[in-house]
Amino acid sequence: MTKEITSAAMEGRGRYNRNSQVQAAGQSPAVPMLQRAAQAVSLPDAQSPIVIADYGSSQGHNALVPMCAAIDALRERAGRNQAISVVHVDLPTNDFTALFETLRTDPQTYLKPDSAVFASAIGRSFYEQILPADSVTLGWSSWAVQWLNQVPCIVPDQVQVAFSADLAAKAAFHRQAAEDWQQFLLARGKELRNGGRLVVLTMAVDEQGEFGYRALLQSMYASLRKMVESGFITEQELLRMTIPTVGRSREEFLAPFVASGHFAGMRVEEAEIFSGEDQIWSDFLQDRDAKSFGARWSAFSRASVFPTLTSALKPDGNLGRAAEFIAQLETMTAARLAENPEPLLIPLARIRMVRER
Amino acid sequence: MTKEITSAAMEGRGRYNRNSQVQAAGQSPAVPMLQRAAQAVSLPDAQSPIVIADYGSSQGHNALVPMCAAIDALRERAGRNQAISVVHVDLPTNDFTALFETLRTDPQTYLKPDSAVFASAIGRSFYEQILPADSVTLGWSSWAVQWLNQVPCIVPDQVQVAFSADLAAKAAFHRQAAEDWQQFLLARGKELRNGGRLVVLTMAVDEQGEFGYRALLQSMYASLRKMVESGFITEQELLRMTIPTVGRSREEFLAPFVASGHFAGMRVEEAEIFSGEDQIWSDFLQDRDAKSFGARWSAFSRASVFPTLTSALKPDGNLGRAAEFIAQLETMTAARLAENPEPLLIPLARIRMVRER
Repeated sequence: MTKEITSAAMEGRGRYNRNSQVQAAGQSPAVPMLQRAAQAVSLPDAQSPIVIADYGSSQGHNALVPMCAAIDALRERAGRNQAISVVHVDLPTNDFTALFETLRTDPQTYLKPDSAVFASAIGRSFYEQILPADSVTLGWSSWAVQWLNQVPCIVPDQVQVAFSADLAAKAAFHRQAAEDWQQFLLARGKELRNGGRLVVLTMAVDEQGEFGYRALLQSMYASLRKMVESGFITEQELLRMTIPTVGRSREEFLAPFVASGHFAGMRVEEAEIFSGEDQIWSDFLQDRDAKSFGARWSAFSRASVFPTLTSALKPDGNLGRAAEFIAQLETMTAARLAENPEPLLIPLARIRMVRER
Repeated sequence: MTKEITSAAMEGRGRYNRNSQVQAAGQSPAVPMLQRAAQAVSLPDAQSPIVIADYGSSQGHNALVPMCAAIDALRERAGRNQAISVVHVDLPTNDFTALFETLRTDPQTYLKPDSAVFASAIGRSFYEQILPADSVTLGWSSWAVQWLNQVPCIVPDQVQVAFSADLAAKAAFHRQAAEDWQQFLLARGKELRNGGRLVVLTMAVDEQGEFGYRALLQSMYASLRKMVESGFITEQELLRMTIPTVGRSREEFLAPFVASGHFAGMRVEEAEIFSGEDQIWSDFLQDRDAKSFGARWSAFSRASVFPTLTSALKPDGNLGRAAEFIAQLETMTAARLAENPEPLLIPLARIRMVRER
């Protein structure tokens, strides 16, 4: 079964902006890499805008800090007058109104302090070329390329393939992840100018092959099984529920580059697997508030992956059912996590590439 | 009173795409002007993308025919390989998901047949500069600049100032319209490249000063008065209901250019007031279906101006009231129009300008 991912990957109406502190904290260790990239890129002539592309913007809030850092680094080199165009890319179903409102009103917006910076958005999949060839100076993609372009098969015993015992499903997901990574790189290689840089931050597996988030995903799956038992969802619906994300290993990230050192005209300058800080756990160590620990991790899941699970519900004309499903799942997952708080592993990869012709 | 227009000017979820045949029909007489502009513009060097900006895109459907026409004309001159970037501009509250889905799936989309054409969107008011200086080759704005940047004052006796007897309100709206037209031109003058062209199609008043749509707006206002009588809305709410559009006269469009022949670095190449065809009336002459005549004009109003009226309802926590208001107003307006079908006047202006340094 191959199902194209067309549902909104993120929950709309600003919820993602409000419940993405895990991603916000997890990306800050990649901002210095983005700054180094901005310091190293070849700049276009002064009459042409410098294009920064943000691949996987969601509702924009988490893009503000990295974009400001990149703009500052570029301004040091290009001066005050050269136009900088920031292009935010996400799926058509993304909440672009929240994105543009964030850019207009957020105190951290990069638009206010610099009248020569301009913003736009592209609502298309980044697994194809979506910007003109040789047009992008600096690319940034944060917490996005772990989302596969399509679901390769059913995962019979989990919603996240990393915790499945089904080896065929695991293999199919990693094949899809390998193909998608290549498609992503090929598209970016076309869009980047010579001497341009691409910095990617994304979910990974650590040296032991651990995907992380174990207690969260086990709580979520156990809650879903309870919902089958209670009759709220069917076995068939649970079977269709799959979070189409893959954590890649260092070897998987570097595989396309092994043969020649280059892929899609790009070369890897830096690549590192590291551990994101579990701020929710750190806060728990301070306040010992188990309920808050569970609620915050569950809110993170609701904003990032519940919409994907909800799309597996059989449409039955009952519009309230999806909302009730989300509410129940959030409450049950939070309660389970609160029973026994433990730090969650957050394996991440940061990779810097240069376009060389 | 000065109220910034922040509510969605158009109804979302694809409704505008489906009920904007009046705009679609009304813009086709300006497409040849856009083609002439595309034939006349100075092109950037072959390595730089040709930027077309669509100011006031709404949900995109009505942009497809003019964009395809412009792209065809540019391809004749620039060849197959030069990148063309189409940038769709509308307010942050616009339904950009509908826009991007239209670009992805509509049979008439300009993205499918030409892999060197790229699309993006900007969710900001076009009454400021929102694209880099000297970056736009061809600008198009259709059925958009009649929307004022802000409501200058209350209109005590109508929802459309053109039918008001309040001379002070009329004067305030026309002052605002004059200021907004200048702001629009100043911003476009900055964004256009030298030799670039801007084509504007917008609502106007004819040589007799007629705004048009008389039966429609009278039916709408009479329906609203009935809703006050029935107690569904209050007198205060009706007082706040204003459609912030102005039909400008030929003299008003040309006023900024009178002193020197140039304004914002632009010169008018063509300017014409003309009458849009009332296709709904033409269909009525064929089928004599008065009910359909009323329903179609009312659906047009619902998609284009009811959201603006709805924003005047006092929030009372009853989310169903706005939906009921829209449903009642559509039904009542349609019924009144059906009582006595008559052709509606649709005065429009088409203007072509060139950027000259």
